[in-house]
Amino acid sequence: MLGHTEPSSPFENVFPFQILLVRYLGTSTWRINISLEPFIESLSKCPKHGLHNPFKSPERYLLYGDISAKAAHMLSLPKVSNFFTRLIQRVSPKSYKQAFGEVYVTQKFLENFSGDQVRFLARSFAVPGNHIGQQSQGYRWPYGPVAIITPFNFPLEIPVLQLMGALYMGNKPILKVDSKVSIVMEQMMRLLHHCGLPPEDVDFINSDGKTMNELLMEANPRMTLFTGSSRVAEKLAVDLKGRVKLEDAGFDWKILGPDVEEVDYVAWVCDQDAYECSGQKCSAQSILFMHENWSTSSLISKIKGLAERRKLEDLTIGPVLTVTTEAMLEHKKKLLQIPGSKLLFGGEPLENHSIPTIYGAMKPTSIYVPLEEILKPANYELVTKEIFGPFQIITDYKKDQLAMVLDALERMHAHLTAAVVSNDPIFLQDVIGKTVNGTTYAGLRARTTGAPQNHWFGPAGDPRGAGIGTPEAIKLVWSCHREIIYDFGPVPRGWEIPPST
Amino acid sequence: MLGHTEPSSPFENVFPFQILLVRYLGTSTWRINISLEPFIESLSKCPKHGLHNPFKSPERYLLYGDISAKAAHMLSLPKVSNFFTRLIQRVSPKSYKQAFGEVYVTQKFLENFSGDQVRFLARSFAVPGNHIGQQSQGYRWPYGPVAIITPFNFPLEIPVLQLMGALYMGNKPILKVDSKVSIVMEQMMRLLHHCGLPPEDVDFINSDGKTMNELLMEANPRMTLFTGSSRVAEKLAVDLKGRVKLEDAGFDWKILGPDVEEVDYVAWVCDQDAYECSGQKCSAQSILFMHENWSTSSLISKIKGLAERRKLEDLTIGPVLTVTTEAMLEHKKKLLQIPGSKLLFGGEPLENHSIPTIYGAMKPTSIYVPLEEILKPANYELVTKEIFGPFQIITDYKKDQLAMVLDALERMHAHLTAAVVSNDPIFLQDVIGKTVNGTTYAGLRARTTGAPQNHWFGPAGDPRGAGIGTPEAIKLVWSCHREIIYDFGPVPRGWEIPPST
Amino acid sequence: MLGHTEPSSPFENVFPFQILLVRYLGTSTWRINISLEPFIESLSKCPKHGLHNPFKSPERYLLYGDISAKAAHMLSLPKVSNFFTRLIQRVSPKSYKQAFGEVYVTQKFLENFSGDQVRFLARSFAVPGNHIGQQSQGYRWPYGPVAIITPFNFPLEIPVLQLMGALYMGNKPILKVDSKVSIVMEQMMRLLHHCGLPPEDVDFINSDGKTMNELLMEANPRMTLFTGSSRVAEKLAVDLKGRVKLEDAGFDWKILGPDVEEVDYVAWVCDQDAYECSGQKCSAQSILFMHENWSTSSLISKIKGLAERRKLEDLTIGPVLTVTTEAMLEHKKKLLQIPGSKLLFGGEPLENHSIPTIYGAMKPTSIYVPLEEILKPANYELVTKEIFGPFQIITDYKKDQLAMVLDALERMHAHLTAAVVSNDPIFLQDVIGKTVNGTTYAGLRARTTGAPQNHWFGPAGDPRGAGIGTPEAIKLVWSCHREIIYDFGPVPRGWEIPPST
Amino acid sequence: MLGHTEPSSPFENVFPFQILLVRYLGTSTWRINISLEPFIESLSKCPKHGLHNPFKSPERYLLYGDISAKAAHMLSLPKVSNFFTRLIQRVSPKSYKQAFGEVYVTQKFLENFSGDQVRFLARSFAVPGNHIGQQSQGYRWPYGPVAIITPFNFPLEIPVLQLMGALYMGNKPILKVDSKVSIVMEQMMRLLHHCGLPPEDVDFINSDGKTMNELLMEANPRMTLFTGSSRVAEKLAVDLKGRVKLEDAGFDWKILGPDVEEVDYVAWVCDQDAYECSGQKCSAQSILFMHENWSTSSLISKIKGLAERRKLEDLTIGPVLTVTTEAMLEHKKKLLQIPGSKLLFGGEPLENHSIPTIYGAMKPTSIYVPLEEILKPANYELVTKEIFGPFQIITDYKKDQLAMVLDALERMHAHLTAAVVSNDPIFLQDVIGKTVNGTTYAGLRARTTGAPQNHWFGPAGDPRGAGIGTPEAIKLVWSCHREIIYDFGPVPRGWEIPPST
Repeated sequence: MLGHTEPSSPFENVFPFQILLVRYLGTSTWRINISLEPFIESLSKCPKHGLHNPFKSPERYLLYGDISAKAAHMLSLPKVSNFFTRLIQRVSPKSYKQAFGEVYVTQKFLENFSGDQVRFLARSFAVPGNHIGQQSQGYRWPYGPVAIITPFNFPLEIPVLQLMGALYMGNKPILKVDSKVSIVMEQMMRLLHHCGLPPEDVDFINSDGKTMNELLMEANPRMTLFTGSSRVAEKLAVDLKGRVKLEDAGFDWKILGPDVEEVDYVAWVCDQDAYECSGQKCSAQSILFMHENWSTSSLISKIKGLAERRKLEDLTIGPVLTVTTEAMLEHKKKLLQIPGSKLLFGGEPLENHSIPTIYGAMKPTSIYVPLEEILKPANYELVTKEIFGPFQIITDYKKDQLAMVLDALERMHAHLTAAVVSNDPIFLQDVIGKTVNGTTYAGLRARTTGAPQNHWFGPAGDPRGAGIGTPEAIKLVWSCHREIIYDFGPVPRGWEIPPST
Repeated sequence: MLGHTEPSSPFENVFPFQILLVRYLGTSTWRINISLEPFIESLSKCPKHGLHNPFKSPERYLLYGDISAKAAHMLSLPKVSNFFTRLIQRVSPKSYKQAFGEVYVTQKFLENFSGDQVRFLARSFAVPGNHIGQQSQGYRWPYGPVAIITPFNFPLEIPVLQLMGALYMGNKPILKVDSKVSIVMEQMMRLLHHCGLPPEDVDFINSDGKTMNELLMEANPRMTLFTGSSRVAEKLAVDLKGRVKLEDAGFDWKILGPDVEEVDYVAWVCDQDAYECSGQKCSAQSILFMHENWSTSSLISKIKGLAERRKLEDLTIGPVLTVTTEAMLEHKKKLLQIPGSKLLFGGEPLENHSIPTIYGAMKPTSIYVPLEEILKPANYELVTKEIFGPFQIITDYKKDQLAMVLDALERMHAHLTAAVVSNDPIFLQDVIGKTVNGTTYAGLRARTTGAPQNHWFGPAGDPRGAGIGTPEAIKLVWSCHREIIYDFGPVPRGWEIPPST
Repeated sequence: MLGHTEPSSPFENVFPFQILLVRYLGTSTWRINISLEPFIESLSKCPKHGLHNPFKSPERYLLYGDISAKAAHMLSLPKVSNFFTRLIQRVSPKSYKQAFGEVYVTQKFLENFSGDQVRFLARSFAVPGNHIGQQSQGYRWPYGPVAIITPFNFPLEIPVLQLMGALYMGNKPILKVDSKVSIVMEQMMRLLHHCGLPPEDVDFINSDGKTMNELLMEANPRMTLFTGSSRVAEKLAVDLKGRVKLEDAGFDWKILGPDVEEVDYVAWVCDQDAYECSGQKCSAQSILFMHENWSTSSLISKIKGLAERRKLEDLTIGPVLTVTTEAMLEHKKKLLQIPGSKLLFGGEPLENHSIPTIYGAMKPTSIYVPLEEILKPANYELVTKEIFGPFQIITDYKKDQLAMVLDALERMHAHLTAAVVSNDPIFLQDVIGKTVNGTTYAGLRARTTGAPQNHWFGPAGDPRGAGIGTPEAIKLVWSCHREIIYDFGPVPRGWEIPPST
Repeated sequence: MLGHTEPSSPFENVFPFQILLVRYLGTSTWRINISLEPFIESLSKCPKHGLHNPFKSPERYLLYGDISAKAAHMLSLPKVSNFFTRLIQRVSPKSYKQAFGEVYVTQKFLENFSGDQVRFLARSFAVPGNHIGQQSQGYRWPYGPVAIITPFNFPLEIPVLQLMGALYMGNKPILKVDSKVSIVMEQMMRLLHHCGLPPEDVDFINSDGKTMNELLMEANPRMTLFTGSSRVAEKLAVDLKGRVKLEDAGFDWKILGPDVEEVDYVAWVCDQDAYECSGQKCSAQSILFMHENWSTSSLISKIKGLAERRKLEDLTIGPVLTVTTEAMLEHKKKLLQIPGSKLLFGGEPLENHSIPTIYGAMKPTSIYVPLEEILKPANYELVTKEIFGPFQIITDYKKDQLAMVLDALERMHAHLTAAVVSNDPIFLQDVIGKTVNGTTYAGLRARTTGAPQNHWFGPAGDPRGAGIGTPEAIKLVWSCHREIIYDFGPVPRGWEIPPST
């Protein structure tokens, strides 16, 4: 009923991915056509102080440490990780290795919160007071009933990490995963139940966005975590009066600094950042700024070579779920009208495939646009429009044009990931000190994608910004500060009532 | 011009407070009737990465350590603290001691951020990466252009603490203080400039709320801190799409537990919590739940005695700025219609005064309402309506009625301060574990008001909730997380390009 | 050779403990009679900067996260945990549940450092510097070659927790477990090797103390952790010139406060604290101070009843390894010569057993000594002599004699565990504020024994004091602070050489 | 009597330093020829739980915040800072700027612990327990009676920072400053008393080392901080059985990496590091390793030029207090017998001075020794012998000889400061990852001296190592961990006594 799963074998066989290409139907059959009442009622049963907090049911912190250890162990079993990898591939177009990456990160995240580590998240601090008997203590407190909405591109990693974070801190979440891919999380819920997750702790809903919006407006969760498009994010922020944490899109940039080294390596990272998962990562490299020293290297031709070895068979390139081929071709056309711009490679539809026309199917594409043109008001919005597919802009800058590059970055709207490819500390600090992207890689091996569970991932520069996965992210997103000031006394001997004030 | 002050003597004489009662004119003459353009332009000059951050102008952290040490020393001088105390009294109706409290807390806050303590706020952390040359580092990053809006009841403490917090973390704030009291902060700005604050770091505006709203919509600050009424807070949250931190009203409660001790002391704290500053603190005690063991004590009669010694001459009771006498009398009347309710004391207008009728003037008032009646849906909203004046509800509960009390607390809307007056650890953990107020005092000496600079003050249970004054509050409100992942290499010897993924 | 194990089946059958009673031979056959050279050489190969640190082989932090997750999972298997529980019982006289407790704590500890949690131990912090390009960063640095010496009473828990802590932080330890019980750790080393521990990371030695002392003097490890008797601890501190962390004995005390409640529960805890493991825990309750309110309760008779149900068959009472029966009888005799003292229960040898006379065999014993007598210089040393067996002192104090109790505590030499059994916050803070025991339990359910892996265990009041198990303990004992101050520049434009200073 | 000062004018005139050169008598007249009894008795009055802790007299944390703010303000007054600067110069041979540096660092340190910052040092943390009512909390606890012994070269900075740190955490220190310079601290004690320091909180003793040793052995302080020579440090470690924290000598090194830039700047830093305070800083550069790329630059000739502008008149070079001229000439002679070694500059006694022969008087000296020779066992001890004067070794290394340099560093005994002058991140991480010096500067602007109050200063690699000045250093040196585990209950309903274990 309320989204929690019936006892059934969690590891039934699934068909291999080839079938997917024939009938890419999504998971609409998973949609439950019941009234929202039970969900609203279930959420409303959770008080504002949550299912647990440092003064209520602390044994539940241990329960979640156990669940995490067990679930991590399950995901470490080749049979199980392979099952989830294939299941992810079945609904989300990515290579085996990319899909496996999700499973692996999820496993490691769960390992991180084994044993006592969930209660360590609830660590508080205390400071002596003004007089004997007084002490102030700052706790992390849950919000109680909360909601989580996650997108199609990471069907396992994003929902598990946010869901568990919410639960660890004592909240009761309702979880909605994009219904095209929610079968993955549906299976994972069964695994979590198997590992001890109390079914009543989480409500799992399959619905379209409109229904979910309606539910949110009625159930009024104390906090809603949304990962997805900027458009929906902004709407939710207004609808929920700011009671949200958001991780939305990014037009992520990479800057190559003056020191040219390891061209092969940098080219390979550029190819992966721009085109893995067919560019459908919110961290995907959308624009590349090359120092002129790189322009004379073989970098671009190497990136081109790497892009061209991508193929549909192993899903190193594949369907684009939110932008049609036509839209991408149209965007390309507009960009090429900018003076000095040129197609570096790609720019054509994929061939020999059965991807439905509601999705996109495009070869990995790079378009060069001159820096001066990018900065022109007439072009800026066009060039920095995020295309959630295998599509990037490449430009270059001269030694004395770094300020122009920084100006281009400052004018962007979302600030998620970024990369500064240089081992020159002074160049690095100059760029880092004048930008704000929340997850910024720096150094010769810098990338924009591939954030794991061990460091913060999230946008910066926005008080609504969410993070994912690390202890800091969990505490920020899923708990708030509560201060208890103990003041036991004794009242000083001989105390007398002072004058009113 | 842009709100920063001309060089002039900061310590000209001010008239004593008596004059205020005659001509309570507010500070409308301080209103600047210029276009908003210069403010918008000034804000827009500050980039998103702020005036300083760990990679930009770190010497400014030291500058603010110096400013704080100097300003703290100034406020420690009797001549200066007396000046500000009297100036506060001139515009905000509170006793000398209450006004001095603001100055003292402000001084201590500034001492706290002397020397290197501002840069210690920017402390980051780092974790080893996956391979040699990799390390992830989490920084506190500024928002850049930000806004601060503060209310009439703490004309010095709230604006200074929030302003300095914003500046410490590298933001450029525009500050609006309620124009009735903004003369205090206007003078304080001069003191800060005198202590080294660069005039271009802060814009100071005097305006009505409508103008400020217009400014915010146009200037679009990255973050806005609002302290004030829930009504305006909710509107701002929508207008600014959630890019806010809020500290709004509270219907603050106190529970007296089963252990009756130190009745004189507890009565005195109750009187202060309910009536100091004529109840015009967002932390003021609005409702008191007495365990039946207290009902048989002399507590109520003692509170009555204390309330009745308050007098207009020394402003231990005084004008109410946002609720008229008529409105309070009307509220009293409605409450007394509830079966079983009764007036405990007060309930009448102040006498022999020249307070204009646009303000309220009421004797300290307590009304008893039976717990069962409070919980009835028909009464609940009425009883828990916040009256920003010297007005409280008193009720009692039997040994086995604690669950009903907790139910009453759960249904409230704002969760700012609270007090649990008991030295019984099991009673304390029971109440604390089932409530969410952000600043909760516990123990025999528990109070609801008088939060200093050394512990967190702010609501809990709301992701938009702000805090004030402590290092944690400053970091939460005025900075966001940014992660830099260094990945210098070297690329492993013999590395070869792997297959695409 | 160097102590690391040959590949062999780690789970061969062991005989049940009953056999042990017949032939309590210890593990002298495990002693390797080779020269110390290989051990010294192996240690000397490890540089001072350790096997890993944040700038060297950071992948090893991940390796240890993996080892921990795997070893924790192994210990969670009933077959394995039962094996180790029985193996512990075979060499260390404790009940199944007590022995299993060691295995369980070890499992939980290992879970705590799964995944990324080992590298999180190496978390550093950074603070902005004085000018652009400068930043100071505080790291946790290993010592390099280190030694660990652990006692007989916790054959698994103490060595594993200290060993893994040392390894996590990047040290190369040589481990010596008391040879009577080292078979347990020998088997555990095989398990760890099986889970991925590189054999060359740890040297494992079986020797007597004299040989180990010789080894330490020659090999000169950078740090030595010693858990054991005060006598040896003090000698090592001198021999190793203070390069030690010590966890030595404690004459642990419990105070029952004025509030008498839950007598059954408190009696049960007293029995366990004094007599579990036959009193052979360094945390065992050695003296009990009862408030006079408890004297009139049934507490003592209940403790007596509980002590008397202990029996040799299930090892709820058993052999004492370091004090003979004779010595305990002699101690009893001396105590009973103190005026007013009396035997409360016990005081006689165990009957019907085959425990060799080199060990002790004594019924659980309590002796009452009046507080005034305890404090007399002539008696104090005698009464507070630690008997590492089932032996405790009981006394009582009047309402106004708390200062005398505190004086008795102040004069003790070692300050390990303590308990203040009271729910009166003012009593608690009075006792806590005037004592120093490193692990102090407070509240009605306070105990002196049973410290798990989730909170600090160790003495306080001594700069040489070690802790065990928690992240804080690991960081304190197994790493030191190293500060790197980055100062990249640039040198300010137009900088000129200043005068000499 | 017990070392605390009589009320007298703290700012009497002192003679200028020139006089000192005539009668460099030290401060033997300050020696008090009384028995040690009063000191021992005074120390013994302080209990092990200290003068304050989080449960005892917490108002004293605020007192020390006040004292710090006031004393910092005093030192910020030019009249006062000039007084102390001149007074330092009178007894410790350093330039005005170097002496002023001490005063300035002391002022900033005191600012850092103004207001609430002392109590923030006592910040504890808490973690939820296993069941309702349980919570574990880790506190920083004082040692009680402690001792501080500080050297001649920083007569103000070292004693004030360590003394205040000890006091902040709740200890009662006895302070002994090298009697040659203790007049400075004697005056500072008066200033601190003036700012509110309770006279009974600190005992101040003037004595020779032997007397102090006797005192320590009798009084048996719980912790002793020693800053000074390795020889005395090792003796104290044994005498006090390891109850010490030590900051002893360092043979501090600097490595110039492959990237040659800003030669003027680097030369100036080298000159300062080696010769400021006539090399009498424990952080002074004792050996310089130049990458071959620097050998062909003008670096050495520039260092020579800078060294030669130092002069006795302004004390940019001056008396050496612990090494005679003769000893330095003898050391030079021995070094020059090493094949390939040569005198780069200096190597001669100062001229035209009246420095007594018990002190040294030497021109700034650099001697080149080939790297291969340094590493030879026959030479290593000689070359790496610390000369506490204006004396350094210079060598160079080829591109492929870094391993030899690292080997030289590994073999040193003390590991205090170091500098790696390079902006190449890979070179930096290679050197940092393979060394252990506690305070290591990295980057083009790296230095070995001039550690301020905002970052850690102290050795690494030794569990006895002390730090100074920062919050981390204070907490490490002057407090220990104490864990209080609250366990209030309630005992679960229906609980029954379980079987014994």
